[in-house]
Amino acid sequence: MTKQFTRSDIDALAQRYRANLINSLSGFKSATVVGTTDGKTNNLAIVSSVVHIGANPPLIGMIMRPHTVTRDTLSNIKQQGCYTLNHVSTEWVDKAHQTSARYAPDESEFDAVGLTPQFSESFPAPFVKESQIKLGLHVAQHFTLLNETEMVIGEVHELYLPENIIDEDGYADIEQAKTACISGLDSYHSTTRIAQFSYAKPDVKLTKK
Amino acid sequence: MTKQFTRSDIDALAQRYRANLINSLSGFKSATVVGTTDGKTNNLAIVSSVVHIGANPPLIGMIMRPHTVTRDTLSNIKQQGCYTLNHVSTEWVDKAHQTSARYAPDESEFDAVGLTPQFSESFPAPFVKESQIKLGLHVAQHFTLLNETEMVIGEVHELYLPENIIDEDGYADIEQAKTACISGLDSYHSTTRIAQFSYAKPDVKLTKK
Repeated sequence: MTKQFTRSDIDALAQRYRANLINSLSGFKSATVVGTTDGKTNNLAIVSSVVHIGANPPLIGMIMRPHTVTRDTLSNIKQQGCYTLNHVSTEWVDKAHQTSARYAPDESEFDAVGLTPQFSESFPAPFVKESQIKLGLHVAQHFTLLNETEMVIGEVHELYLPENIIDEDGYADIEQAKTACISGLDSYHSTTRIAQFSYAKPDVKLTKK
Repeated sequence: MTKQFTRSDIDALAQRYRANLINSLSGFKSATVVGTTDGKTNNLAIVSSVVHIGANPPLIGMIMRPHTVTRDTLSNIKQQGCYTLNHVSTEWVDKAHQTSARYAPDESEFDAVGLTPQFSESFPAPFVKESQIKLGLHVAQHFTLLNETEMVIGEVHELYLPENIIDEDGYADIEQAKTACISGLDSYHSTTRIAQFSYAKPDVKLTKK
């Protein structure tokens, strides 16, 4: 049976129910932990709103809510101008989810959940040692959207990933690296490749790579 | 072996290689086809850049490239002010990918790939009949980002999904509905739930739902 919701049906839902429902509708989402520092405490926060903006220059965006548990992360990003994005592995989704607890600003989520901060000589924000795919970004654009959420777009300045997951054409097999994905607010998933397709052309039968 | 790329390493890559690599870094992405019309031709385009913006009001964003194959979609959205988002099923990822071919503006991707346009009495843009989860959106905000890509944020006005995938708390089990996800530019994946976690609190052991 198909259930239909009109806009007024959605508006009439209880707040938590609506949050769970609407958060499910944007499809599967990337599972990423954001590493920042205020110069003293290393902060780590899970986000599921990472989005590709462009490859040249390499730009990645994310949506942040300024008045929620990620406010320390956002404040560090504003203060320092840089942050790391680290893929969450299917092997430690529990630790990644636990970073969403409301720890005190001077308490490091790294310590609290059992993940290890790792620094490069050339980057001031902490990477996650346990992550297979890690990016260091500088803020390139930052603005407020119509509902008072904020969009942060970062330019990739450093990148670490396992050499053996990079295909000849540059595709990085994030499934082989055990990157997890998220649905809704709290469901974590592993993936199984169905197919990788060639470039699509009109009137040409699609082929698998 | 970990491979490191500095920013100048990334800038020195061949264009196609860089596109494949950088598109892999934002993690798993939602697989969605966007339905639009210019009043005559029903247009359908796959996007992997859908992102949750907020639940109250229900807002969903997506990133579009104005000078690529999605330019007809973007033009229809600007002209009509509305569009549909339809979850891609693991059962027809090939048809979804084929919508990325560069068809003529007066050729419908629905017909070309073998998907069925479906209209509701109260919504002017075409839904995809074969999709389990369908949203009708009105444009709420539209602007250009630093790299000349465009962000379209839509407000959900209609929503259709199978009643039996909605949990008591509002979470919609999109895995049960066979929603696919994407990595890179052309790899399609099914998912397997690892865990769904309770709300995280400091110093409280995480429990599964």
